Amino acid sequence: MPNYRLSYFKIRGRAETARYIFAYSGIKYEENTIDIADWPNLKNSLIFKQIPVLNVDNIIINQSSAIARYLARETGLAGKSNLEQARVDAIVDTINDFMNMFPWTEKNQVVKQKIMEDVFANNIPLLLDGLSKLLGDQMWFVGDSVTWADFHWAVCSITLTNLNVDTLHNHPTLLALKERVEALPKIAAWIEQRPKTPL
Amino acid sequence: MPNYRLSYFKIRGRAETARYIFAYSGIKYEENTIDIADWPNLKNSLIFKQIPVLNVDNIIINQSSAIARYLARETGLAGKSNLEQARVDAIVDTINDFMNMFPWTEKNQVVKQKIMEDVFANNIPLLLDGLSKLLGDQMWFVGDSVTWADFHWAVCSITLTNLNVDTLHNHPTLLALKERVEALPKIAAWIEQRPKTPL
Ligand SMILES: [Mg+2]
Ligand SMILES: [Mg+2]
Repeated sequence: MPNYRLSYFKIRGRAETARYIFAYSGIKYEENTIDIADWPNLKNSLIFKQIPVLNVDNIIINQSSAIARYLARETGLAGKSNLEQARVDAIVDTINDFMNMFPWTEKNQVVKQKIMEDVFANNIPLLLDGLSKLLGDQMWFVGDSVTWADFHWAVCSITLTNLNVDTLHNHPTLLALKERVEALPKIAAWIEQRPKTPL
Repeated sequence: MPNYRLSYFKIRGRAETARYIFAYSGIKYEENTIDIADWPNLKNSLIFKQIPVLNVDNIIINQSSAIARYLARETGLAGKSNLEQARVDAIVDTINDFMNMFPWTEKNQVVKQKIMEDVFANNIPLLLDGLSKLLGDQMWFVGDSVTWADFHWAVCSITLTNLNVDTLHNHPTLLALKERVEALPKIAAWIEQRPKTPL
């Protein structure tokens, strides 16, 4: 087993899906928590100036989805066939496309609030309707067992619900999927122990 | 071999990396060219209202990266180990992050031009410097043979160079990589026969 070190801020953010995979699979890793004060220095040292990065025996993997997909493949959470993996990947990228519509770095709070409301009114319903259709009456998004697409949905839906408490009101099956992930004993244990942060 | 049908507009855009994989591997597929006039109808029928989609024996894969990664895995272009695959995936996502900074759908041409220039001045250099470092003096981005990350770079750098002819001026190794991909005989043959379009 390689040595894993995950570098990120003390928030769920773009690292939490990887943390769910570590938790679920029981793989040990070092959490390298980046203080905001240390970020400028670390940033300078990183080839693309971004975190999270995963250090795997001194090879650095950047990009949150690449990190999570790698860990998912290591641990049997990526999908059971190439086609299942493609369906998993597409769900993750679709969720990310929508999460990236939010103006996370907008400084003007009035503008930010306006765009947030706009995304919830005009875009998020399309995501939720689509994901509901994909899920149908299945337990998990793809195949007959949990994949990192389910984890990613569980993680992102926390943020969606924090931003707008009514988000899942009309999508009970998506809420139930989130709760199914969070009830997996090792995920539940991780949620219990993780830092409580707004993002 | 499954039946493949790739649905997209008659542009390189987000489907061209998949087309390079088809061309390089010699896998037959049906190109389902979407006329703008037919798009509203097709759009209505699609779960996430987006193309490209790849139909694989009547299973629909959405998201351009999920499609290309699936085809790359089918054809040995995804990276030779899980860790190589992660490095390939990270390069693709990084290129996409930067390509997504361009205001592709902005209607106001003055605003569009201003943001384009801004991205070229402030963001693209970081991408190019990072990719140059990753490439170093290797033939290909990852491992000792071509992967779809090289194809994706070759495809996206056409658009970058069309937007700004000086893009690769200070990055001869990245230009050489693009040319190396384009000189692969099956890629060269595809480039020769493909529709000539601005995007
Ligand atoms: Mg990213
Ligand atoms: Mg996409």
